[in-house]
Order: sequence, then C-alpha cells, then structure tokens
Amino acid sequence: MKIIDCHAHVSAPAELWAYKASLLSHRGAHGRGGLKFSDDEIRNAVEKKRFEGGDKSHMAFLDEVGTDVQCVSPRPFQMMHSEKPSKLVQWFTEEVNDVIYRQTQLYPDRFVGVCGLPQSPGEPLDMAIRELDRCVKLGFKGCLLNPDPYENRGNGKAPPMGDRYWYPLYERLCEHDIPAHVHATCSHCADREPYTLHFINEETTATVGLLNSDVFKDFPTLKVIISHGGGAIPYQLGRFEAASARKPGGKLFSESMRHLYYDTVLYTESALRMLVETVGADRCLFGAECPGVGSARNPTTGRTYDDIMPILRDATWLSAADKQAILQDNAMKLFKLSA
Amino acid sequence: MKIIDCHAHVSAPAELWAYKASLLSHRGAHGRGGLKFSDDEIRNAVEKKRFEGGDKSHMAFLDEVGTDVQCVSPRPFQMMHSEKPSKLVQWFTEEVNDVIYRQTQLYPDRFVGVCGLPQSPGEPLDMAIRELDRCVKLGFKGCLLNPDPYENRGNGKAPPMGDRYWYPLYERLCEHDIPAHVHATCSHCADREPYTLHFINEETTATVGLLNSDVFKDFPTLKVIISHGGGAIPYQLGRFEAASARKPGGKLFSESMRHLYYDTVLYTESALRMLVETVGADRCLFGAECPGVGSARNPTTGRTYDDIMPILRDATWLSAADKQAILQDNAMKLFKLSA
Repeated sequence: MKIIDCHAHVSAPAELWAYKASLLSHRGAHGRGGLKFSDDEIRNAVEKKRFEGGDKSHMAFLDEVGTDVQCVSPRPFQMMHSEKPSKLVQWFTEEVNDVIYRQTQLYPDRFVGVCGLPQSPGEPLDMAIRELDRCVKLGFKGCLLNPDPYENRGNGKAPPMGDRYWYPLYERLCEHDIPAHVHATCSHCADREPYTLHFINEETTATVGLLNSDVFKDFPTLKVIISHGGGAIPYQLGRFEAASARKPGGKLFSESMRHLYYDTVLYTESALRMLVETVGADRCLFGAECPGVGSARNPTTGRTYDDIMPILRDATWLSAADKQAILQDNAMKLFKLSA
Repeated sequence: MKIIDCHAHVSAPAELWAYKASLLSHRGAHGRGGLKFSDDEIRNAVEKKRFEGGDKSHMAFLDEVGTDVQCVSPRPFQMMHSEKPSKLVQWFTEEVNDVIYRQTQLYPDRFVGVCGLPQSPGEPLDMAIRELDRCVKLGFKGCLLNPDPYENRGNGKAPPMGDRYWYPLYERLCEHDIPAHVHATCSHCADREPYTLHFINEETTATVGLLNSDVFKDFPTLKVIISHGGGAIPYQLGRFEAASARKPGGKLFSESMRHLYYDTVLYTESALRMLVETVGADRCLFGAECPGVGSARNPTTGRTYDDIMPILRDATWLSAADKQAILQDNAMKLFKLSA
C-alpha cells in the first residue's frame, strides 16, 4: 500500500516569494517578468532547504512520516487572491503552478500536482478556468478552490458556494473529471481571525453553502474535498441536522454530507474518529499537510502533530479495508492516479 | 438533583417583537415608547403560546425534557446590535430584559435571568455596562456577550476578544462576579453565513481571541462561557495545539482552554463526549437551548434533537459526580444560584 497525502503545499525556492514581493511593490508597472529555475534549484528547495528554518527539508519530512506520494498545491496563505489588479494574481499563480509542475516532473513517483486558481474578488471565474485548463493539460490532477477570495479585506464576501457564480467552474471541473479541494487563503483581519482560523471558518461556511444548495443536483459528478475535516461541521452536526429535519421530505444534513469528500488534516485521534464516523471511510482522504501547521513537536509523544498516519494505521476503530481506502484507494480514485 | 439548562432564550408576547418592528421603522422619531404587559400576558407567552407555531408552549418543552431551571436570555438573532442609532438597541434591549425579569419574578423556581447587553459597533461599552449594572441590581445572574455587534453588515468587524476594547466590561463583570455567556447575534449575510452558522464561526473566533491574549492574566477571576461547546475548537484542537507548542515556555492551547467554560448545546453524543473529554467535566455546563434550533423531531429516535439530558444522564463515559457537576453543580457555582 502507498500512503498518499492529499493535502500538502509546495516548498519552493525563495526567489518565488521574492517575485511575489516584487509584484506587490510594482503592481504590474514592471510587467510580468518571470522566473527561470534550474532543476538543481527546484531539487534544492525540496531536498535541502530547511522548512521554516527548522532542522529538516520538505522531502525529509515526507520520509520521516512515511508518506509515499503527496498531492502538492500552492501554499494557500501566500495566494493573495484579493490583490488588485487581478493580473498580479494571475501571474503569481501561474509561476507557483509552474514550480509545482516542475516538481511533479522531477519526482514523478512522489508528487502529484494540484494547481492553484487565480481567483479575483468581484470578477467572473474566466481567468481561473483558463488556468485550470492549462494545468490539466500539464497533468495536474486537481485544483484548490478558495471560497472567499476577498480574504477578510473588508470589501465584501464571495457568494456562497451554492451560488450560480461558481457554476462555470463546477461545469469545467466535471468536464475534466478532477476534484476541487476547498481551502481558503490569507486573512487580512489577522488580529481577529488569523489565517489558520480563517481556513476553519471558511470551510465550515463552504460546507453549509454547498450542501444547502442545488449544486449536487445540478452537478451530480462534481468532486469536492473539504479541507481540515470539514471545519466545524462534524462536531456541530446536530444543529444542521435539526434544521434539515424541519423540512419535510428533504434529505437529512448528515446524508447530504456524503456528497463531499474530507481530508484528515486534523491532529487528534478523537477528531479523526469523529470525521470517519460522521461521513464514512469512503468519503475520507488521508491528508497531513506535512510540513505545515502541524509540524511542531508534541512534548508528550516526541513526534510532530502532523505525524497522523500511525494513528490511522493502528486505529482499532477502523477495518483494514477502511484504512486502505483512507490512506490510498480513495485518493487514487478521486485524483485518477495510476498505481 | 436539579437539571439546570444554562442556555435558553426568552419566549415573549408578540408585542415585544412588534415593538422592535416599530422601532426599526420610525428609527427613534416616535420616541422610546414602551410596553406594559400584564402578568397574564407574560404567563401566556410562557405557558400557552405555541413555540414557532408548533404543538407546545415554552413551559411544556421544559416539562417534556425534564429541565427544572433555565437561565433565560434574549433570543440572540433578534438582538439587532448593528442597528443605528444605538439608542434603538438600548431601548429594545431594556424591554427584552424587562420581560425576562418579569418571568424570573413570576416563575422564581424555574427561570434565572441572563440579560442582554446593548452593544453597538464602533462605540465604547459604556451603554452595555450601564445596562449590566441595572440588571444585576434586578437580580440577573449573568449576561450574554456578542463578540461581533457588526453582525456581518459589511461595515467592519469588532476587535478580537483579547483586545483592550473589551476590558471595561471584563472589569465590571469581575466586580459583579457574574459570567458572560459568549453568543453572537444576527447575520446580515444570510445567504452565505446564516445566523446559526455565524454563531459557530464567531464562537470559534472568540475562543481563539480570548485564549491567545492576556485576558485571563489581567482578569484571573473573569468567568466566560462559550456557547455551543466552543464552536469548532474541540474538533480542531490539534492545529491550535501545534501552534502553541511552537512557542517555547508557553502554555499549550489545551491547557488554556480550561480558562473558559462551555455549554453543552450540541446535539450528538459524539460531540458531547468530545467536549467533556477535551475541556474536563468541571468546565462544562448543561445547556440545551430548548425550545430552539434543536427542537425538531429526530426521525430515528422520535425525540427532539435538543432532548440531550438523557444522553448525559445515561452516558457510560461520565462518572456520577461528573454528571452532577455538568447537569447542576457547575451552573449553581458559576451563576451563584441558591439551592
């Protein structure tokens, strides 16, 4: 069995972030410019550069926690969707996706590409769809989808995910038959709702927006993964279940939840168990986001919080078949990976 | 043992809501006006009026689920904190609190008063503190506190709950030695984040705002209850725990969580268990918010979702002492109720 982590973010050469910094200063006045990395520079970012100044490289993290294959996407909190003009978002997203593409070429057995989309608040999704098409041609197997490109900037909120605003993208995702992985980006309201908290709130909101809508009636083959185990929803299921029970003849919310997939980027056994028991093992994809927010060492276990594979592998509350589904098979199927 | 539901909202004569409707039309031009209910009208709202046009009165719900005592507060989604001028908020809140006061006088064995506070976005908390003082004199035992009086109106967000903006209120709460029950109000962004979802997101944000701050260093005796079992936090504990583990010498987030209290307004056994096992039985107060969002009938059990007392009473994962603490003793102590 291969351990497939469906939720991981790219470790790129520092020049990628320097490019972003420059874009945000010249706001397009210097033109698009671009980056030309050598293979060695890309390899260095994966194998040698220490993650967040710690003691290990991205690849060393993978090896330590025993991940065989990672679905790699842009680091969401860097995505800057709310910046204007939107060509800045487009240029940067394309550069990030290109780095990811290079990594999938250099490490075809380890990395699967999940592209970022250049979304821009108040604009239609045409630019995002163009980049999706480009990336699918390059071999990307999925995309991140930000439910709130406004990024708490105080200039509004995106339509709920059941709104027809999103339909052109849903249509194209169905045509390509690839999944969207829902993941919010930055938060400009960092003192009140720092990005890591913003992710959770936005996933909670996205899940309700999708399930209390016609999206899965209109797009029965749409594949959507909700990050971090669905935000608050499995824990808060009861209140949404009660609301659905008030509507005669409708589906219960708990049944609707099975329209979606959920990654296991949760760092406690009780949360992992709650997720699986709420939505079913067939809707859960192993994800650890390693290295990332959970890569701090747990003083009790001595392991990093994101080292969750052993929890699932050793769980007495999961059958062998369910373990294989979560750790490998569901991702193989959803991202259409070859063995 | 008495079953004390710490989280419940007032059932008032329809004239109270008619008063609100009128205020929102004349915006103060007609002056404050006011309501003069007879005891019979108040009793009628509690004992005869059917909750949300269903088959039972508020009191019949209490009797059906076996609640002996309820802490009654304003119905949050009606609070209209974001309306201007703020005198509208003040007038309405005072009227609601007066109805609650009357109910505590008419049913001294059944109802305990938890007042609403007239908070207004962008204004200091003086008006809220004046109403708190008035209500404490009337015998109220706690207050609701809205972490976001802006109510998703698109005109900004309140400072995080660790901000000094809130300190004058925290100081007065400590002087009175009564708890604040954190509960958001309306959401004007109803298509994207309906009020019931807004509550959850705001509690999640409030919990992080309080615990990642100096509030409990500066106010060690402050008593704060987070509604609905802490929003997403017990389920999402791992990511906040990992973030806290990165800071050398600091408290782990899970330890900090024990500065707060949490009500059990969760409608599944797995969520109730997760809450108690995460924060400890001594930090949990029984709450059902009945009648309310959970008062729909569960097609499987035939009981309403908010009939959670039997789950706690019969739980094999709770000791007898813990059951008594959650169902009665913690509320007695926190609200300083007499036996």
